[in-house]
Amino acid sequence: MNLQLDEHGRLRHFLSTEGLPRELLTQILDTAESFSGVIGKSVKKVPLLRGRTVMNLFFEASTRTRTTFELAAKRLSADVINMDISTSSAVKGESLLDTLRNLEAMQCDMFVVRHGDSGAAHFIARHALPGVSVINAGDGRHAHPTQAMLDMFTIRRHKGEFEPLRIAIVGDILHSRVARSQIHALNGLGAGEVRVIAPRTLLPRQVEDLGVHVYYDIDQGLRDVDVIIMLRLQKERMAGALLPSESEYFRRYGLSAERVALAKPDAIVMHPGPTNRGVEIEAGVADGPQSVILEQVTNGIAVRMAVMSLAMGATGERA
Amino acid sequence: MNLQLDEHGRLRHFLSTEGLPRELLTQILDTAESFSGVIGKSVKKVPLLRGRTVMNLFFEASTRTRTTFELAAKRLSADVINMDISTSSAVKGESLLDTLRNLEAMQCDMFVVRHGDSGAAHFIARHALPGVSVINAGDGRHAHPTQAMLDMFTIRRHKGEFEPLRIAIVGDILHSRVARSQIHALNGLGAGEVRVIAPRTLLPRQVEDLGVHVYYDIDQGLRDVDVIIMLRLQKERMAGALLPSESEYFRRYGLSAERVALAKPDAIVMHPGPTNRGVEIEAGVADGPQSVILEQVTNGIAVRMAVMSLAMGATGERA
Amino acid sequence: MNLQLDEHGRLRHFLSTEGLPRELLTQILDTAESFSGVIGKSVKKVPLLRGRTVMNLFFEASTRTRTTFELAAKRLSADVINMDISTSSAVKGESLLDTLRNLEAMQCDMFVVRHGDSGAAHFIARHALPGVSVINAGDGRHAHPTQAMLDMFTIRRHKGEFEPLRIAIVGDILHSRVARSQIHALNGLGAGEVRVIAPRTLLPRQVEDLGVHVYYDIDQGLRDVDVIIMLRLQKERMAGALLPSESEYFRRYGLSAERVALAKPDAIVMHPGPTNRGVEIEAGVADGPQSVILEQVTNGIAVRMAVMSLAMGATGERA
Repeated sequence: MNLQLDEHGRLRHFLSTEGLPRELLTQILDTAESFSGVIGKSVKKVPLLRGRTVMNLFFEASTRTRTTFELAAKRLSADVINMDISTSSAVKGESLLDTLRNLEAMQCDMFVVRHGDSGAAHFIARHALPGVSVINAGDGRHAHPTQAMLDMFTIRRHKGEFEPLRIAIVGDILHSRVARSQIHALNGLGAGEVRVIAPRTLLPRQVEDLGVHVYYDIDQGLRDVDVIIMLRLQKERMAGALLPSESEYFRRYGLSAERVALAKPDAIVMHPGPTNRGVEIEAGVADGPQSVILEQVTNGIAVRMAVMSLAMGATGERA
Repeated sequence: MNLQLDEHGRLRHFLSTEGLPRELLTQILDTAESFSGVIGKSVKKVPLLRGRTVMNLFFEASTRTRTTFELAAKRLSADVINMDISTSSAVKGESLLDTLRNLEAMQCDMFVVRHGDSGAAHFIARHALPGVSVINAGDGRHAHPTQAMLDMFTIRRHKGEFEPLRIAIVGDILHSRVARSQIHALNGLGAGEVRVIAPRTLLPRQVEDLGVHVYYDIDQGLRDVDVIIMLRLQKERMAGALLPSESEYFRRYGLSAERVALAKPDAIVMHPGPTNRGVEIEAGVADGPQSVILEQVTNGIAVRMAVMSLAMGATGERA
Repeated sequence: MNLQLDEHGRLRHFLSTEGLPRELLTQILDTAESFSGVIGKSVKKVPLLRGRTVMNLFFEASTRTRTTFELAAKRLSADVINMDISTSSAVKGESLLDTLRNLEAMQCDMFVVRHGDSGAAHFIARHALPGVSVINAGDGRHAHPTQAMLDMFTIRRHKGEFEPLRIAIVGDILHSRVARSQIHALNGLGAGEVRVIAPRTLLPRQVEDLGVHVYYDIDQGLRDVDVIIMLRLQKERMAGALLPSESEYFRRYGLSAERVALAKPDAIVMHPGPTNRGVEIEAGVADGPQSVILEQVTNGIAVRMAVMSLAMGATGERA
């Protein structure tokens, strides 16, 4: 049984893009499409979640991601409570469960969870009371499914169908929850070919089992792709000797205008932000005509509105 | 004259459970009962305080308590402003008054005040402008009246009338504003017998004057009670040599399943949370069938909605 | 072309009181007048900005100023997102622009910006997308225009027309963005005579070019004025040897009851708060019958509502 679905196969929690049926992934994109009209208007609000309470439960600080969830919830007319819970107070296992039970007792309808440990959102969802939904806003190295879905939304808007597409994900695949969720989403939506491009030290073992083609050479890997997805380089990896210097990294794996030219002429360039200009991407490329980086941010609101309203059973479609 | 009441004897500030007439305490419980239906619904909102502004003025950090007030205010449709004012900047006396005057000038309707000094909420209420209500969310060792009232609400739901009840409060009575407010509320509501159970070092002088029976031996004190209220042990007291080790404390005053069995068979177990499992209460008891600890949290929202709406003269009853 | 106005001469950004036409300054005051009725009512809300998103972008902490903007936005029914961005992470130049682009991509309608660097709000406004308004909530030593306008509002309420007025601004003119904005607003509104009173070390060079009369002696400068505006003394200036001791400063430039008596009998005393009693102003004067300090705070909400709604083109007048 899939923890993410209710007994009718509808979304209840959104924890991972792995193992979700294609229809559900498509329903999220279609619902987001309907909301993207709303947020372009001057009154950017729909009353779908009026009177519901969304709690942003951030065990790992991320002002940016929290803000997008807060905006999405407010545009659905929900009440939002922000709880920043430092991991220093080590809220784990039984104690995490105790915290959860107390927050549930306050009659919240949804937890948006960010946590440094892989599996934290699943753990919370597994123990959540009936009627409470859990959204994973990033857990350890495991998953960041709303980021992946906003990327899918952005790709679909520019490229239409997924089947004919060739997509390259470039950078630190090993430590990236974003990459993992993107790969599962792309496979779930039937993308033609998914490539990962990285040095050996930044690839998980047996990464091919995820259904991707591996390239160690970026110039080969980018050839004829429709979509280039750059990952953010966590600079703290440098200290760990997994990586050469920043300039050496840029020389070997950074996205320059010359490299963009290896892809199809109408290829789009994506990045989850914030970019490290000059490290994984050239400033001119990040701001260039093929970049859709800011569109990704905009689409993130509509996609999060879609996931939240679907998980709370509050879409117009089902009403 | 009672600072808490207006000239018609209605609630204006809620600072302490001490000296409030039984009718008023009962009115708070009855009003909370009417709201507890609201928060069980999917649209958990009533428009009673629409357009009013509630300011959470926390001079002492307490995310948990602040969140319950924030939720209660939002469910009444009020606007909420959170102000965390560290005590390190020493906001006292004239300077506290100056801060207060400035916040009042912003046309707030209510201050929810948490402060490390006993009497801070009274001080603020004494100087508040007409039309501004003050709610005490905990002041020093003095009072925590909304916590006490949610406990009363929980007791009434399980036990009905207060007259026939025998209630035991166990733990660090000396430092507990919760215990003090509970004792006054229980006496005000006419509870049959209130017992306090604690080592001599953790009892206030002349505690009997509060109208309680004192027990130093928990096994004697719990005999035949209807309600067991455990207090949270502030671990920092340990350092002060007032207490033996945690395990020794648990051996002498901790609530085990064996000790619960000394009370009436249908006795309920309460705790203001968060629990120190294995210190003042056994995990199995905290999560056991007689525990109503999570109900207390849920009831806390309804009770705070009741107190806030009554103090702002915004209940349906008076409309 | 004035960055603050759109092509029809209407307010788009509010960055400075300098160079704004008198009609516009008057329109802000008139609009604030219409809102000041709203915030005196128990339902202090108008739906003018429903569905709009205001982002408080504070690169410099100021709980008090942020709160007044948050209140103003909520009373206009806008959604408010608070972003506290420490300057330690050095968000400047290109990087500030990158942050801005990302926040704009979230479809915010307005940024309220506080920044330690002079010119930061102008920089952001210059790069803002169409449809996004920027309000300066204080930038370095440069400007604090909403503070100046609430002061103008307060003066007009007490004194009516500006033409016949003689106004003295007293204190650290050199470092004060408030003083600079007040001087421009007073000149723009046609005030009869603006005096600045300060020691030489706390006056900008060629301050006369701003259109003010300079007094080094407070007893001479206060003679026959209608309005006394005291500035807050930043105590950290003391260390910089620009100033004598606090008591010496008070002796030479502090506002005592005796000095108030030098002004006209019906002169009003103003201060942007929080006051340093005994340093720049005597406690008895700050709380005395001629003080309008708390009115300034109250007026600050109405004036900020006016600026926000005008900049978003959402006033009743234009509907």
